[in-house]
Amino acid sequence: MEPLKLTDLRSALIRQEETIIFALIERGQFCHNPPIYEPGAIAIPDFDGSFSDYLLQQTEHIHARVRRYTSPDEHAFFGDLPEPILPPLAYPARILDTGINVNDRIGQIYRANILQAICPPGDDGHYGSSATCDVACLQALSKRIHYGKYVAECKYQEETGSYTELVVAGDRAGILDRLTKPEVEEAVLERVRHKAAAYGRDIADESAGGGDHDPAAIQTIYRDYIIPLTKEVEIDYLMLRAEA
Amino acid sequence: MEPLKLTDLRSALIRQEETIIFALIERGQFCHNPPIYEPGAIAIPDFDGSFSDYLLQQTEHIHARVRRYTSPDEHAFFGDLPEPILPPLAYPARILDTGINVNDRIGQIYRANILQAICPPGDDGHYGSSATCDVACLQALSKRIHYGKYVAECKYQEETGSYTELVVAGDRAGILDRLTKPEVEEAVLERVRHKAAAYGRDIADESAGGGDHDPAAIQTIYRDYIIPLTKEVEIDYLMLRAEA
Repeated sequence: MEPLKLTDLRSALIRQEETIIFALIERGQFCHNPPIYEPGAIAIPDFDGSFSDYLLQQTEHIHARVRRYTSPDEHAFFGDLPEPILPPLAYPARILDTGINVNDRIGQIYRANILQAICPPGDDGHYGSSATCDVACLQALSKRIHYGKYVAECKYQEETGSYTELVVAGDRAGILDRLTKPEVEEAVLERVRHKAAAYGRDIADESAGGGDHDPAAIQTIYRDYIIPLTKEVEIDYLMLRAEA
Repeated sequence: MEPLKLTDLRSALIRQEETIIFALIERGQFCHNPPIYEPGAIAIPDFDGSFSDYLLQQTEHIHARVRRYTSPDEHAFFGDLPEPILPPLAYPARILDTGINVNDRIGQIYRANILQAICPPGDDGHYGSSATCDVACLQALSKRIHYGKYVAECKYQEETGSYTELVVAGDRAGILDRLTKPEVEEAVLERVRHKAAAYGRDIADESAGGGDHDPAAIQTIYRDYIIPLTKEVEIDYLMLRAEA
């Protein structure tokens, strides 16, 4: 594996943070629109799932054709994707190819918790717009959370001995404890709140707060879902990495 | 037509501004990648255009099926789109249905001027990512520029007599002059520069400036392309509106 430092990942992580905040704010323009998440509630020819899933699956089909899912950074929500029309790229071996994919859980949490936190309740009929925003949110969340693989690889390279010991002992709680840096998490949460407050409002109007959206809701999503899921990916990765 | 005030459009315009700035910054992560804009440079089964156009056209096909282009806010770049799978929504009659669509010019300017301003030159092989960003940029630019129809409708309602007189005289320069509010444009440009500088950098690190991107480049794109094209849409709209 090539040497990997947390500082190398820093700008990618910050950019992904902005993509997520931005996507969540855009989704929050529209109501929850529950029918788009109920399979069968909106009849779709040749598709059994929900309307939101339909748009995600169709988008993944296009992106698969342009080889999105050949990148180790990217994880599809749906299987059975078409072959790329582009020749493969050679990616540097920066992480172990583990097959870890937590998109099912990301989708569940998105539908069960995140939408409620960012959208006004009810149905405004903006089904297409909402589902288009869902695609952006889910792809951004998936990329950021699976980036835990890179973070874990860095940490493994920095402290190979300690992590190997914990993995051999099967001590997931011990790994979680070692991965957790409360002061770093506090800094991320503060930055997220700050950015969420800065976006979507008129900068000339200092009284405008966070515009229509609630910066605290986005901070809470980071604290309760994004950071814990990322750490799960990190632990899963380390369990396989230290055995590799 | 329903009464329309500029204050009603304000939050939509500000949100679109952020979507554009954000999309341009995301595109600027990747090199220019000229082959994706040359028809035939990348072989695509059953498609004659460029790779970037392919991704845009495929995305428009999906979005057409979820009725995106039935909204008076939305304008497709490609014709021959599939029928929506959703029943039509009733939109309030806030603007005249004019058929004005300047997407061909937006696409030309994007490829000839905007890409050079935001991307490092050269080819980094990230064709799929670049073209995915192109879709986001072009859709955001198109929406914002065609929003000129709403802006023009407001101005027409505010000053019906003056605009009708100029339209009857065929005085496009006079209309342009009346539409142009230098102090408003200055404020927009200042806000754009400010936001472009705030995004994509670590807020904790005040020395970081605009991250990897140049806030002045995005301001220039607004000044030289987005504002003038929006005013062209406004003039085209007024020419038809005052005759309607």
